[in-house]
Amino acid sequence: MKLKSGIGYELEKKDVSRIGCDIHDFIKGLYPICRSITGDGVRATLKKIGEHIPIKIIEVPTGKKVFDWVIPKEWNIRDAYVKNGEGKKIIDMKKSNLHVLNYSMPIHKKMRLAELKEHLFTIPSQPDLVPYFTSYYKENWGFCISHKQYTRLKEDIYEVHIDSEFKDGSLTFGEMYVKGLSKDEVLFSTYICHPSLCNDNLSGIGLLTALGVYIKNSIPKYSYRFLFVPETIGSIAWLYLNREKVRNIKLGLVATCVGDGGDFTYKKARCSDALIDKIALKALKDSKIPYKTVDFFPAGSDERQYSSPGFNLPVGSLMRTMYGDFPQYHNSADDLNFIKPIFLGESFEEYARIIYIIENDATYLNKKPYCEPQLGRRGLYDTVGGKAEVDVGQLSLLSVLNYSDGKTSLLDISIRSGIVFDRIKQAADILCKAKLLKKIGR
Amino acid sequence: MKLKSGIGYELEKKDVSRIGCDIHDFIKGLYPICRSITGDGVRATLKKIGEHIPIKIIEVPTGKKVFDWVIPKEWNIRDAYVKNGEGKKIIDMKKSNLHVLNYSMPIHKKMRLAELKEHLFTIPSQPDLVPYFTSYYKENWGFCISHKQYTRLKEDIYEVHIDSEFKDGSLTFGEMYVKGLSKDEVLFSTYICHPSLCNDNLSGIGLLTALGVYIKNSIPKYSYRFLFVPETIGSIAWLYLNREKVRNIKLGLVATCVGDGGDFTYKKARCSDALIDKIALKALKDSKIPYKTVDFFPAGSDERQYSSPGFNLPVGSLMRTMYGDFPQYHNSADDLNFIKPIFLGESFEEYARIIYIIENDATYLNKKPYCEPQLGRRGLYDTVGGKAEVDVGQLSLLSVLNYSDGKTSLLDISIRSGIVFDRIKQAADILCKAKLLKKIGR
Amino acid sequence: MKLKSGIGYELEKKDVSRIGCDIHDFIKGLYPICRSITGDGVRATLKKIGEHIPIKIIEVPTGKKVFDWVIPKEWNIRDAYVKNGEGKKIIDMKKSNLHVLNYSMPIHKKMRLAELKEHLFTIPSQPDLVPYFTSYYKENWGFCISHKQYTRLKEDIYEVHIDSEFKDGSLTFGEMYVKGLSKDEVLFSTYICHPSLCNDNLSGIGLLTALGVYIKNSIPKYSYRFLFVPETIGSIAWLYLNREKVRNIKLGLVATCVGDGGDFTYKKARCSDALIDKIALKALKDSKIPYKTVDFFPAGSDERQYSSPGFNLPVGSLMRTMYGDFPQYHNSADDLNFIKPIFLGESFEEYARIIYIIENDATYLNKKPYCEPQLGRRGLYDTVGGKAEVDVGQLSLLSVLNYSDGKTSLLDISIRSGIVFDRIKQAADILCKAKLLKKIGR
Repeated sequence: MKLKSGIGYELEKKDVSRIGCDIHDFIKGLYPICRSITGDGVRATLKKIGEHIPIKIIEVPTGKKVFDWVIPKEWNIRDAYVKNGEGKKIIDMKKSNLHVLNYSMPIHKKMRLAELKEHLFTIPSQPDLVPYFTSYYKENWGFCISHKQYTRLKEDIYEVHIDSEFKDGSLTFGEMYVKGLSKDEVLFSTYICHPSLCNDNLSGIGLLTALGVYIKNSIPKYSYRFLFVPETIGSIAWLYLNREKVRNIKLGLVATCVGDGGDFTYKKARCSDALIDKIALKALKDSKIPYKTVDFFPAGSDERQYSSPGFNLPVGSLMRTMYGDFPQYHNSADDLNFIKPIFLGESFEEYARIIYIIENDATYLNKKPYCEPQLGRRGLYDTVGGKAEVDVGQLSLLSVLNYSDGKTSLLDISIRSGIVFDRIKQAADILCKAKLLKKIGR
Repeated sequence: MKLKSGIGYELEKKDVSRIGCDIHDFIKGLYPICRSITGDGVRATLKKIGEHIPIKIIEVPTGKKVFDWVIPKEWNIRDAYVKNGEGKKIIDMKKSNLHVLNYSMPIHKKMRLAELKEHLFTIPSQPDLVPYFTSYYKENWGFCISHKQYTRLKEDIYEVHIDSEFKDGSLTFGEMYVKGLSKDEVLFSTYICHPSLCNDNLSGIGLLTALGVYIKNSIPKYSYRFLFVPETIGSIAWLYLNREKVRNIKLGLVATCVGDGGDFTYKKARCSDALIDKIALKALKDSKIPYKTVDFFPAGSDERQYSSPGFNLPVGSLMRTMYGDFPQYHNSADDLNFIKPIFLGESFEEYARIIYIIENDATYLNKKPYCEPQLGRRGLYDTVGGKAEVDVGQLSLLSVLNYSDGKTSLLDISIRSGIVFDRIKQAADILCKAKLLKKIGR
Repeated sequence: MKLKSGIGYELEKKDVSRIGCDIHDFIKGLYPICRSITGDGVRATLKKIGEHIPIKIIEVPTGKKVFDWVIPKEWNIRDAYVKNGEGKKIIDMKKSNLHVLNYSMPIHKKMRLAELKEHLFTIPSQPDLVPYFTSYYKENWGFCISHKQYTRLKEDIYEVHIDSEFKDGSLTFGEMYVKGLSKDEVLFSTYICHPSLCNDNLSGIGLLTALGVYIKNSIPKYSYRFLFVPETIGSIAWLYLNREKVRNIKLGLVATCVGDGGDFTYKKARCSDALIDKIALKALKDSKIPYKTVDFFPAGSDERQYSSPGFNLPVGSLMRTMYGDFPQYHNSADDLNFIKPIFLGESFEEYARIIYIIENDATYLNKKPYCEPQLGRRGLYDTVGGKAEVDVGQLSLLSVLNYSDGKTSLLDISIRSGIVFDRIKQAADILCKAKLLKKIGR
């Protein structure tokens, strides 16, 4: 698929629907993998992404200092279970990799219920669900189970088995760079460290992979960088390794939670008046879909790192329901049924619409700025006058002519006029062809 | 009538009522004339305006290039009708000059219904009304009729007759200039090219004529220019001929649609923070009447030309219901019954109020800026203290004193304090007399 | 009581309750005194204030010119009554000092009802209440009574007796100055000229006295000035005498009407973007109590003088129900029952909270601005990750780190993050201790 004029605005419903199904299918293949911030789960995930887009895999060795952090030992796990006195597995990572506290130490030991309970994690307010918990930076082991199961556990001698391994290895991330006409960059970032969770994690991976397919063969105006990194430590490592060239990033989005059926949420960039904010909010408005805007706050996903004061990159985040705001967040209900092809497709369309605006926004100059030029003579205006309503096509032409003073961009014109960006771009093209307008800045 | 302090704020209800009736009577005389963008209808209209105010008539010859446009041939029409096979006039311009497509070519020919229908214009959604359509810049002929009549037309041989004439003549417009103390100008503009339509066209002509009577004998602070021009081509021609001196225009309004009973609508100027916007919106607020504000958009009436980027003049438009927003727009229902003396009177009052603010706004300096001066000693403050409510007259005095720092104008003070402009002006006069305040800028 | 970190945010409910009772008790002792803008009532009031805080008493002699005003003769009153024909006192200042028109001339005379009535003041709309009226700057005498009593007065010969005295004396005010580390000043001002009125006058005196006790023994960052002045003429006199050094005042509040049970009202300073506005509104917001904001207007209390254009000091006013807005305003219903200890306590708490922010706001610099520092390693972050909700303590740490760019103050961070100021301050302290943050400006 090639990047063409009209992306996002010209996608037909059936394309969107097909893309949504493709993304969902791709996510199905990723779901069973046990990911963490390091290890083979991350590598397996990147391999599947690499089947669709040309990503470079980077390995950062254990012990490497990245700003205030140190790359931890690599963690891999083969098996984890708890057996009761009768030898029956009552908790089994093979059923769901959420059952093991992520980054658990290895253990093989028999113990009474009291000791086991100190290592069991539940959500009492959602007694049927298995939570997702981690212990990356403190040595611990544990199991996550439903609170219902927890309360039913009987006094017994339990056999606890976690076959995990910590070693000097590396942290792994993937990166695709599409070189454009300018070295100014657009950053799309998502994280790849969550195990079997769909909306929070896999939806972002799926969306960015599809978006990568969409533009990988084009020569866009901006250069595009796609990052697939373990959350926090991964983006910190990437920023450390690329600290000299991050200034090229002029716009960015963190993609996450894009598969549920909630309204869209746009979390603004830290810096005020960021171009990405203006573009994302205009794209959402043009879509006539419900959305809400959230000011930047320094928690959440990797925008925390991109927006740390030393970098302050203009990176927003476009989601459906925001992390933490849906009851399936960080538990076993965030599964393949929770995300739907139709919602993934809509989210893809929205990201594509943003790219369309990024690629097509520019500044023009009206070559006949004194009064209106006579559009009728050029076949651009109704020859029969007197209609009660102004046609949006004609209003687009008049708006582009009136506001194109060499400083006001098409994006600004579309915001001021309330006309969708795509129509404004079409009007600019027509007026350029009629030699009434000329492009003077990207 | 002379321009006096208090215009707009001091007009009594009975004056407003009388002026509304005068305007309506004047419009009655203009209603039957068949106007177009050129020709004798325009001249007849300007002659009637000239009976009340001293306007200069300007003729711009056919073929003259005005920016991107060329003055078209002059069009005049004597008669137009369609007869059926029995020789009965079934469409007759003598009954309503809306029946002829404005700027129709001459024709005299018999034809079948099918051929005739290609030249008939109707509004299917308003089947009882005769629409108003034009074909200024493309050779065509036609008739406008009700859709009801259209659907009842039978197969027949029709005799089509349009006795119109195109000739090298001129485009005509009228202009009144009232020289004030400053060469800075206030522009009032309206259009004079519509045939028998009342709110959309004649109401603006009537209002500006009355306003012209109101100030023609005064020596105002600003100079005032009243333009009566054919829409679009007329304002373009005027701008072309006056392109060197339009910079004198510091404030302006296009007057149109001021006779219906809807709420007021203020369409803002193109340039941000225009003084005319501040003044018009304050006048409307002071009136305690309902109104809405519409941002500038580059369609509508002659503000399109005044606000083209090469000129960008600070011109707004004060209407009742905006063009296009009332069902009578551009059809036979926009007649003498649709506009009422009372609404025309209210609109006049609003325009007069705006002139009052324009003429009386100024910047003053508090001569005793350290603490309040003792107003009681000067008879300007209650001698008995302790009243629970502050009198608006006293609050006006305190507001003018407190905010008159030499930079804040009376208009700004009235906006900040929420007190009507007229009271603030009265307070300034009192304080000047008491030597506590001095005027330092107009 | 010493000024300590946490004032206003750390006050316990029982402290607030006790302070409210203390203020109410103090007001009880002030209530019977007959105050005016000069005279022994003012001195008696200042003496009682001086029993709690070290105030300096300043006497400004009669006849002294202070800007546009002149210090009037000193007024003292011993007795005032009206007897009916039977010799019975029907109006008696001993029952309420509101009965005498404040600043009445001496008189002893018998007269008919008609003559007496010209000197009787009532509120017809509140027939049971005795109003408070004054005649400071015009020679007059009079009595204030309920309208009910007024309408029942019969034809009779009345004996009118006012034993008052005008003499060359002085105007008296009190001032406390707490020297801080900086000569930049915080001004708290209230007026001391109303007779037996509680919310409008005594509540402000009581609150500022308690606040003075609260901070008198501390060495704050700012210097604090407490003014107890007769309204208008007193603040004018103070401004005149201190005109060379008022520029030290960087923030200020006029305290009045702080004892009723209405919502809080914050009247903004005249100058835009005043720091006191930002602080007061943040303190109110943090309290989660209802409040409304009123723009500055040049009537009201002594903020009128502080905010005259020659001074334009950044002085707001924090009240409960604003003067003039409660029916007890300026009449006998504004008594000891109208104000309650609980409301006085709440108001004290709000003022203390404002002082806390003033004293603790500062600008810090994140010493590790590239990405987040690893808080977990320092014991400042949950070791178990994955919780659905972010803890406010952790969000405070992240917010202070992210926004501390050396220009954004703690106040700005608390406003931007929506987190109460106190938590933000605590987070800054923790981060300084962890050497992740350093203070770079007060």
